[in-house]
Amino acid sequence: MSPVVGSAFFLFYLLALCNASGADIALDAKATLLHRIDSLNLLIYTCLLTLTVLTIWVFKHRRVSWLHETGLAVIYGLIVGAIIRYASSTNQVTYIDAHPAPDTKYNLSVPPDILRFRFPDKIQISSGDTVPNKTYAYSFRGEIVNLEQNEIDLKATFDPEIFFNIILPPIIFHAGYCLKRKYFFRNLGAILTFAMVGTALSALVIGALMYGFVQLMPASLASSFTFLDTLYFGALISPTDPLTVLAIFSQLKVDVNLYAMIFGESVLNDAVALVLSGAIQNYEKRYSVDGGFEITAFLAAIGDFIGIFSLSLLVGALLGCFTALMTKFTHVRDWPLLESALFVLMSYAAFLIAEVFELTGVVAVLFCGICQAHYTYNNLSSDSRNRTKQLFELLNFLAENFIFTYIGVSMFTFPKHHFDPWFIIAGFLTSTLGRAVNIYPLSFLLNLGRKPPIPMNFQHMLFFSGLRGAMSFALAIRNTVSEARQAMLTTTSLIVIATVVLQGGAATHALAYLRIPTGQGQNDENEALPYRDVRSLYQATDSGRPETPRSGEAGEKARLARLWGALDSRLLKPLLTHARPPLTETLPGFLSPLARILTTTRQYTQADNSLRRTDSDSDLCLDEPQPVPTSIDPQQLWPGLVDTRISVEGITGSNI
Amino acid sequence: MSPVVGSAFFLFYLLALCNASGADIALDAKATLLHRIDSLNLLIYTCLLTLTVLTIWVFKHRRVSWLHETGLAVIYGLIVGAIIRYASSTNQVTYIDAHPAPDTKYNLSVPPDILRFRFPDKIQISSGDTVPNKTYAYSFRGEIVNLEQNEIDLKATFDPEIFFNIILPPIIFHAGYCLKRKYFFRNLGAILTFAMVGTALSALVIGALMYGFVQLMPASLASSFTFLDTLYFGALISPTDPLTVLAIFSQLKVDVNLYAMIFGESVLNDAVALVLSGAIQNYEKRYSVDGGFEITAFLAAIGDFIGIFSLSLLVGALLGCFTALMTKFTHVRDWPLLESALFVLMSYAAFLIAEVFELTGVVAVLFCGICQAHYTYNNLSSDSRNRTKQLFELLNFLAENFIFTYIGVSMFTFPKHHFDPWFIIAGFLTSTLGRAVNIYPLSFLLNLGRKPPIPMNFQHMLFFSGLRGAMSFALAIRNTVSEARQAMLTTTSLIVIATVVLQGGAATHALAYLRIPTGQGQNDENEALPYRDVRSLYQATDSGRPETPRSGEAGEKARLARLWGALDSRLLKPLLTHARPPLTETLPGFLSPLARILTTTRQYTQADNSLRRTDSDSDLCLDEPQPVPTSIDPQQLWPGLVDTRISVEGITGSNI
Repeated sequence: MSPVVGSAFFLFYLLALCNASGADIALDAKATLLHRIDSLNLLIYTCLLTLTVLTIWVFKHRRVSWLHETGLAVIYGLIVGAIIRYASSTNQVTYIDAHPAPDTKYNLSVPPDILRFRFPDKIQISSGDTVPNKTYAYSFRGEIVNLEQNEIDLKATFDPEIFFNIILPPIIFHAGYCLKRKYFFRNLGAILTFAMVGTALSALVIGALMYGFVQLMPASLASSFTFLDTLYFGALISPTDPLTVLAIFSQLKVDVNLYAMIFGESVLNDAVALVLSGAIQNYEKRYSVDGGFEITAFLAAIGDFIGIFSLSLLVGALLGCFTALMTKFTHVRDWPLLESALFVLMSYAAFLIAEVFELTGVVAVLFCGICQAHYTYNNLSSDSRNRTKQLFELLNFLAENFIFTYIGVSMFTFPKHHFDPWFIIAGFLTSTLGRAVNIYPLSFLLNLGRKPPIPMNFQHMLFFSGLRGAMSFALAIRNTVSEARQAMLTTTSLIVIATVVLQGGAATHALAYLRIPTGQGQNDENEALPYRDVRSLYQATDSGRPETPRSGEAGEKARLARLWGALDSRLLKPLLTHARPPLTETLPGFLSPLARILTTTRQYTQADNSLRRTDSDSDLCLDEPQPVPTSIDPQQLWPGLVDTRISVEGITGSNI
Repeated sequence: MSPVVGSAFFLFYLLALCNASGADIALDAKATLLHRIDSLNLLIYTCLLTLTVLTIWVFKHRRVSWLHETGLAVIYGLIVGAIIRYASSTNQVTYIDAHPAPDTKYNLSVPPDILRFRFPDKIQISSGDTVPNKTYAYSFRGEIVNLEQNEIDLKATFDPEIFFNIILPPIIFHAGYCLKRKYFFRNLGAILTFAMVGTALSALVIGALMYGFVQLMPASLASSFTFLDTLYFGALISPTDPLTVLAIFSQLKVDVNLYAMIFGESVLNDAVALVLSGAIQNYEKRYSVDGGFEITAFLAAIGDFIGIFSLSLLVGALLGCFTALMTKFTHVRDWPLLESALFVLMSYAAFLIAEVFELTGVVAVLFCGICQAHYTYNNLSSDSRNRTKQLFELLNFLAENFIFTYIGVSMFTFPKHHFDPWFIIAGFLTSTLGRAVNIYPLSFLLNLGRKPPIPMNFQHMLFFSGLRGAMSFALAIRNTVSEARQAMLTTTSLIVIATVVLQGGAATHALAYLRIPTGQGQNDENEALPYRDVRSLYQATDSGRPETPRSGEAGEKARLARLWGALDSRLLKPLLTHARPPLTETLPGFLSPLARILTTTRQYTQADNSLRRTDSDSDLCLDEPQPVPTSIDPQQLWPGLVDTRISVEGITGSNI
């Protein structure tokens, strides 16, 4: 070690020559402090989530069903939020009023991105130190509406845009990826009606009623709400989030069609509400430019809604199909890690592309998830199927519990709450009424045309499942500029907390009271779980085997579903996956050169129905009978690597 | 649908009453634009990563080995960076010079967190609109050193702290989690010497030589570098990142001990360099307070280094052991999703706790990963083992390729590069020399006491594997305040790019030239891969089976490793996992009540060596002979769920 000792002396000498610049120490300490506060905030949520996980385990272990994990997360959040608010010391933010330099040249009507601030300039620093004048950069954050509310709090709060860009995308993607498409398409009419028409209707009714309520309130408050404000409230409070109820459904094996309706609606109405609220805001902008109400602005808002929704859908679907093509025509399957990375990157790209083109990333991600499950999933190696399922399941679990914890904590720590008892009461009443207006009249209309009508107790259950959740909260916290918006946030938070804890807790009783049959068939139930773990995934793949021809059920389907089914089974599936029949059989003759290019050897050579079985939504293909396969050599279908590995896994796994 | 139509008219009426607030439209458009730019930046990287993934696939498919994925990522990054720089239009940031309001009261010597800025105040907006006066919040960002370099660029750059808080933790955790502990501990002495002594030595030599070089440069430049600056450069350029070489090693099945030495060193020297550079910065602060060189400041810096390193290690190890206890004594294993979530949350908590206490989160996460692998992993359900391995493998893959892409892109787009040819040449020379000073003298010293000495060709290979990577870049880009630091960033980027692309590409030839034996035993090689996919994981578990007693090898081990092995097998393993022998046999008699509490039924009842087999680092337990198990009923060991599922998976998997 002699070189070390020698160098140490040399080091001493050099350090003595050294002339480091000083004076930034206080600033550095400040940056460190801010970083520590950030870390502490994250640590609080990490501990809360850990606590939630452990408690859920105890609950599951003791078979407690009256409190779901999200309810638990909210309650823990509330407790810790109260502690943070009332027990911890405040970390006061320092601020200075600043003005532009006298001879500033600036031509835009919007404030600049960056201020270059001379400090201390002419301020007398009373601490006595001589602080050298330096220039600091300050970046734009937002408008300060209420100058008296000085305290911009550093306590356990995050930028609301985090929800739309980080927390919601995995949740929504997971919902699309795990959507049980078989039952979803079987109930497509009802789901679309409830989600599209119903949500718009509910938003409208809630908006109008709230506007009426607000007019009855004290004048000071009434004047701060415009009709667009209350309509916005209607849009944000309309999407449902019946996680708690669905968890109980899958526990008790409730009818899969009811499950599919409630889950499908909740997935879609999140997307609808998000686009709807965006359209309302755009309307607000156009309207205020024109200076008066115009039919064109209203039509533009409707056009906005339809355009943004369908373009976002398109972006998501295209990216999903593109991934399917890539996984079909390359052998990237041989390297599962690359394949999974490709899958994740493409799905995230769907979100980003939509955002870049000012569409709605969350909607794109939803439909990307559906396409990934419907097409790409069939091309993936079994390792990647596993990995992607498990990855998004875990992300979804963490994101969901985080958002509910945050709802609880922010109830106490978010500085921009505005408690207005009248508005809160009105909010509870109208949101219940809005749900009723969504379900009962539309069920009545649907039952006019529906073969097996939706029975009354199912309708009540649909009404009961109108819990509010993540999307409502994220929309409410996005904009808290005015007092009206702050009152909306408070009301939304309370509605979410109340419905998740109380309605969620009462779900088992509601099922019993409404005499909804539970304990349905093993296979069906497993396929419909959004929270299924790997076991159910395999059982689902497994359960494909005893599936006999379903041609008898075809009569039930609507014409639209039939048309889509034919297109899907004859064009899209053979194009995007290795499914039979190949395009060479389904496309018209003059396209056969193209068809030959787009058909893989596997599609030609494999036994006719060998792959169909593993396809989880096989009943979309309506027209051909599906003979039960007799015996297939696995080696023949998936040559080499993949199979060997899985067998090894299975064997060693069971020896552990 | 009549309610809809009716309501629509009602809506018209209400909208006509409406009185929305305007004037924020331009501001809103600006926020939208900023969000779109952010999304576009992310999209660029997502597309680059997708491209990298696809190209890697082609390379793997065609068995190209002269370019590794990280080299590819760098090259794509460089190309796209150049395109962004020279082809795209600039998105100019707007700024205004601001001053404090005349009558400001403010007592701190640091600038405030928030500026409250009146706009447009008295500025003449030439566009003619009357812009109402409003107050906006601006948050602190940092010092502006060079007022002439006005353009703060929005092009494809991120806050450097992102690397330390988001990108590096999963990479480092994965390294710890996948460290092949058997060979790591067998070569512990060499690894610790190279990583601890070697890195410090290399930093010192590089720092001193660079200081000499700088003195020979033009006076204007020489004056801007202090010895602490060059020492900091030495610390940041010392850690190695031989991903490329290791990937080729595992492909060609190179000697596992060499592999373990290179991998182990690279994992640890990242941690050492990070703490070392922190200590140098702390020294800078203390020193400049005192106003002159002091022996106390120097000793304090050494104390800092040792204190922060060992405390961070402790935090990580404790959190890892705590997770092991939680997974041992609860049945959370029955719900793999909860278990995986717990695992991820606890590992992240290790990072956050270290950061909150001003320790080094990255170091904590490394040792947390090692403990999680060594203890917790043995308690996990096989589903969670799978899921956590695959999750961190994917995160590591994405994070690693992102950082190398970013190195490429930022070469062109990061505004604070400073090209100084002399400094760059000096950097290349000294960093090579620093690596040589690390390897050759220390190998000589090690070989004095080492049983199988490190042969000369291994030493050359160790020298050759001194590629620089993620950690060097992250440290260099963290601080680019002065010209000196900017020159360091440029030099570091160039060294990273050159070593990754050129040295990485030449690795196969170097192996052949140095006549290092390749094509070693199947089992060993699989266990040592950091990039193993699931297959190798199972093969590793599988390969435990033919493992015969290793008592013959025990003679090789150093006393320290022996002592640790005994402690580990007699106290820690029985305490933290279900491993035999139970604590009741190993602890002294007076502790037996405690030992009984801490021993699970499974530890009492299971066959003596049944679990040892699945423990991937069984050779740490030195003292007891390990009879080969004859036949074990899997159902007996892992009752119920887990096994069934895996068998189902194995069977359906191979039918797909």
